[in-house]
Amino acid sequence: MNPKLFAYTGGEILPLEKAFLHISDLAIQRGYGVFDYFKISNGHPFFLDDYLDRFYQSASIMRLEVPHTREGLKSIIYQLIEKNDLPESGIKMILTGGYSTDGYQPKESNLIITQQGLTMPAKEQVEKGVKIITYEYIRDFPLAKTINYTMGIWLSKAVTDGRAYDVLYNRNNIVSEFPRCNFFIVTKDGTVVTPSHNVLNGVTRMNLLNLARRHYNAEEGTVTLDDIRNAKEAFLTSTTKRIVPIVQMNDHVIGNGTPGSVTRSLLTHLVALEEEDRAKKA
Amino acid sequence: MNPKLFAYTGGEILPLEKAFLHISDLAIQRGYGVFDYFKISNGHPFFLDDYLDRFYQSASIMRLEVPHTREGLKSIIYQLIEKNDLPESGIKMILTGGYSTDGYQPKESNLIITQQGLTMPAKEQVEKGVKIITYEYIRDFPLAKTINYTMGIWLSKAVTDGRAYDVLYNRNNIVSEFPRCNFFIVTKDGTVVTPSHNVLNGVTRMNLLNLARRHYNAEEGTVTLDDIRNAKEAFLTSTTKRIVPIVQMNDHVIGNGTPGSVTRSLLTHLVALEEEDRAKKA
Repeated sequence: MNPKLFAYTGGEILPLEKAFLHISDLAIQRGYGVFDYFKISNGHPFFLDDYLDRFYQSASIMRLEVPHTREGLKSIIYQLIEKNDLPESGIKMILTGGYSTDGYQPKESNLIITQQGLTMPAKEQVEKGVKIITYEYIRDFPLAKTINYTMGIWLSKAVTDGRAYDVLYNRNNIVSEFPRCNFFIVTKDGTVVTPSHNVLNGVTRMNLLNLARRHYNAEEGTVTLDDIRNAKEAFLTSTTKRIVPIVQMNDHVIGNGTPGSVTRSLLTHLVALEEEDRAKKA
Repeated sequence: MNPKLFAYTGGEILPLEKAFLHISDLAIQRGYGVFDYFKISNGHPFFLDDYLDRFYQSASIMRLEVPHTREGLKSIIYQLIEKNDLPESGIKMILTGGYSTDGYQPKESNLIITQQGLTMPAKEQVEKGVKIITYEYIRDFPLAKTINYTMGIWLSKAVTDGRAYDVLYNRNNIVSEFPRCNFFIVTKDGTVVTPSHNVLNGVTRMNLLNLARRHYNAEEGTVTLDDIRNAKEAFLTSTTKRIVPIVQMNDHVIGNGTPGSVTRSLLTHLVALEEEDRAKKA
């Protein structure tokens, strides 16, 4: 634990090592809560309003109340950014079910905000692409970013054992998302497609889709495991990872087994979009 | 919070109000953990070995390690029972994913043990029976008692709105369990049946099944929603609730709409079995 870092808990900013929740909190008792996560570069939070939109939406779906207005929340975030002085980093907001009196019914939510260094994908992974495995599963509340990663964490062993980078959820052959990333393919005819259903509305996913629409045919739609086997390119997107090319699914090599030109071009566009977002602020 | 109660956390027994977890714990970050719960009467923990079996099994399924041998764990439990002096109560053990350094990979588990008063079902509910509603869902790891109650808690509103007592999970018409209870029917020919698949191996469920086998035809098997509509009786079982008769499922009245004779007789046998278990100890 970085001893210089501060976190927001219990309504105040205090040293991270002093940030605790009482064990009656419903996150500890019943794994009940939502969260969100966004990236900071040179002190600038990227696409902050999009992430806040989703945080409030997750809370609303799970019937929790964020104990601050959007402006109040932003003010805490900017205070934390200033205090931590961690130019390249990520901020995580967790909203729990609160200190439940009966260990089941949510009470006033506890809000936790932490900031930590970024773990970017290794250069080699972006340059050579990665292998993924698949697993039959759909998250309980795909549109909400709940803290429930029981399945994703349990599958870490299968990912390691399969020498894979991540695991792609699917049901009845229809693909949805990774535990923490969204998924895209580029079809043989050059269309960029991302699953439309049972997925978290990733902010990077949305940005990518908009970028792809400017340069290619691009759509949200049904993606099957067969579509992946027939795809020219595949990649995953996430806030921290941006784009990681996928060159193998289970035993099947995708395309020619190297990151494709559309994938590489979209990554360049995405980096440019981040620059644009930063410039807006300045 | 009862100010006189003690809890076990961080390797020691301390006042419940001082029992905290650092926010880096994987229960808070990712809802990752398992737990178990057993009942105490006159200081005697009922069927303790069965509950400990299941606790260690849940941990093993979710790849967590209980940081004590069974005898070590029992010793802590008995110390806590003595310290709290709460003759009629329940003990909850929670084993979390621990203080994760990357917010995703489990580390050395944190073990929390708390004791609190029992909330038994109201007399009227046992005497008149209750209504249940149904919902299409199966828990991710039915054989493990994980802390993930995201769905169960979210469904509380539907339960309240439907003026129901609880919500029964099913998929493709096949019934499994309640969020926190097991399910039984008594068929028209007098056979006691409990769902065999996708259910937690409840200790009360197992005791009930053994008791039912002594007095009736009884089996684990497939139970469909139609089987419930055609059943003579239905009831739920749990550690705290023992047996609660079910007289209505959604809009359908079960049997003659009152608790059946088999249900009532099994409750009597179950209370007697608890007395037997207590006598063994003494």
